[in-house]
Amino acid sequence: MANELRYVGLDVGGTTMKAAVVDDDGRPAPHVSLPTEPERGQEAGLETMCETIRQAVVAAGLTLDDIAAIGVATPGTMDLKTGYILDPPNLKPWRNVPVRDYIAHKFGKPTAFQNDANAAAMGEYWSGAGAGVRSLVMFTLGTGVGGGIIINGEVLEGEHSHGAELGHMKIEMTKPRLCGCGKRGCLEAYASATAVVKRTEEALAGAPPSILHQVFREKKLTAQRIFDAAKAGDPLAEKIVDETAAILAIGAANLMHVINPEMVVFAGGMTESGDWFLQKIRNHVPTYAFPVPAERTKIRFAQLGSDAGFIGAAACARQLIRGALRR
Amino acid sequence: MANELRYVGLDVGGTTMKAAVVDDDGRPAPHVSLPTEPERGQEAGLETMCETIRQAVVAAGLTLDDIAAIGVATPGTMDLKTGYILDPPNLKPWRNVPVRDYIAHKFGKPTAFQNDANAAAMGEYWSGAGAGVRSLVMFTLGTGVGGGIIINGEVLEGEHSHGAELGHMKIEMTKPRLCGCGKRGCLEAYASATAVVKRTEEALAGAPPSILHQVFREKKLTAQRIFDAAKAGDPLAEKIVDETAAILAIGAANLMHVINPEMVVFAGGMTESGDWFLQKIRNHVPTYAFPVPAERTKIRFAQLGSDAGFIGAAACARQLIRGALRR
Repeated sequence: MANELRYVGLDVGGTTMKAAVVDDDGRPAPHVSLPTEPERGQEAGLETMCETIRQAVVAAGLTLDDIAAIGVATPGTMDLKTGYILDPPNLKPWRNVPVRDYIAHKFGKPTAFQNDANAAAMGEYWSGAGAGVRSLVMFTLGTGVGGGIIINGEVLEGEHSHGAELGHMKIEMTKPRLCGCGKRGCLEAYASATAVVKRTEEALAGAPPSILHQVFREKKLTAQRIFDAAKAGDPLAEKIVDETAAILAIGAANLMHVINPEMVVFAGGMTESGDWFLQKIRNHVPTYAFPVPAERTKIRFAQLGSDAGFIGAAACARQLIRGALRR
Repeated sequence: MANELRYVGLDVGGTTMKAAVVDDDGRPAPHVSLPTEPERGQEAGLETMCETIRQAVVAAGLTLDDIAAIGVATPGTMDLKTGYILDPPNLKPWRNVPVRDYIAHKFGKPTAFQNDANAAAMGEYWSGAGAGVRSLVMFTLGTGVGGGIIINGEVLEGEHSHGAELGHMKIEMTKPRLCGCGKRGCLEAYASATAVVKRTEEALAGAPPSILHQVFREKKLTAQRIFDAAKAGDPLAEKIVDETAAILAIGAANLMHVINPEMVVFAGGMTESGDWFLQKIRNHVPTYAFPVPAERTKIRFAQLGSDAGFIGAAACARQLIRGALRR
């Protein structure tokens, strides 16, 4: 035990931040969480990060002396080279926050800094769906569509910290939907949970009465309720879910033709609908991808849920000490 | 001179193969070329490869003892890990050809094997448009659309040798054009030289008389003639060229949001139309890409022409001896 290295992974979200100590094999101790409260400003935010890290160490029954390195994941925009959060839409009014150096100096430990979607992909690569693969592309389906690409144990960060913004691949030119980013035709405008609800609302307008109409009248339409209606046999919901699977297959195929990874992972709320939906995505892949990657690329749902972020942040911390996970 | 390492780069095409000795700084000696004649079979093909390599060494005024390593680039399909050409559409009837080991044993030299589009990207990275950048994505616009991705001096080969098949990203769902690969909606079905001619022929059918109609009646319509007509002010040709620039900007933006490279390079016949066309592509990029990569990503035309393949093959040979060009 005394020789085993341990890391703290911290995942900062717009609402809460979560941290845990993670051992050298990717196993987390119990995690702690604190409210982010970005509106209190970035100095308060940095102090909450430090407090979450301290509490995570206590929750693991350890002291800071037991910690080899710290990893911090945050939403963008960011500059990964300098370790700054720049102008994060989900952490307003923070701006130009020197996260990495602040944490490193506060604790006197090597500190890694990573985009939250990249960190989540790293978590799945280390000890989730992708354990053992050489390369992995992950799509995270939520309010938006996030992405992470890991090749030979390294995060593809990109030259301007914009690597793996997979939600913003253009997949439509003729009738391109408006994306939350302000551009048109992005994958996110079709395949995020928000976009699935929007596509359903539009389809409901001209469709015959169905379970979904009843849901829509009685409660808020959500991606989960749409998926439930599809499972219950509602034809309109089935159509929406199948189109969503086809769109995600296009996303996967495009990445098979760019990165050609060993595995494509989907994460986020929609994946909780189970293997039924995973199989639909897989069924569409051969329509869009070349035979070899279509046959050989493993397609999986994520396994770590919302723990992927802090586990991946810890993986990035581990890299500072141990080098790349696999080469 | 005696201490300087030299490499032979060989680029095998469907019609001819070209080779040259390249020095340690990426400067080629005069190249030689021989007909490929794939119809003569793969044993004859392998022997022609060896003969082209031998002639290249003679053309450089050297002997084989002066050569540190050999690099061979061929069209796919292929298995880069084992060094085999598998089932190449452009080299029929070759099948399962152990190119790398054959050349390595024949000459007793370390031998690298690479996809031709990847090798061309490596050539531009080493001593062409991308000299000095850390990461580069290249689109080669010809009969099809090829691609190559270089990050920190290494070719992104992919898990199944399908990395950087950039022509087969899907960019259209509503009215997806049929691609030469048999799938629909691929970038190649819009932006290859062949596709530009096809889009023009379709547009001519319903358009008022123009320079292009006259070209079409008198000679074969080619991408070059379409670009020339656009330069001469033909409105239909201008429209086609501008749409092509927008489609290439979508391709570039998608790669900015996946790889986020320091530079995007376009190569192939269409780029000979000059900076006029390059500027059109650049003008469309901010419509599709996030502000930071749109502003900062260098967009260039290739500089090495058809020498890029053998220079890049030599770069891959150099890596066997020297390790990655830049990290």
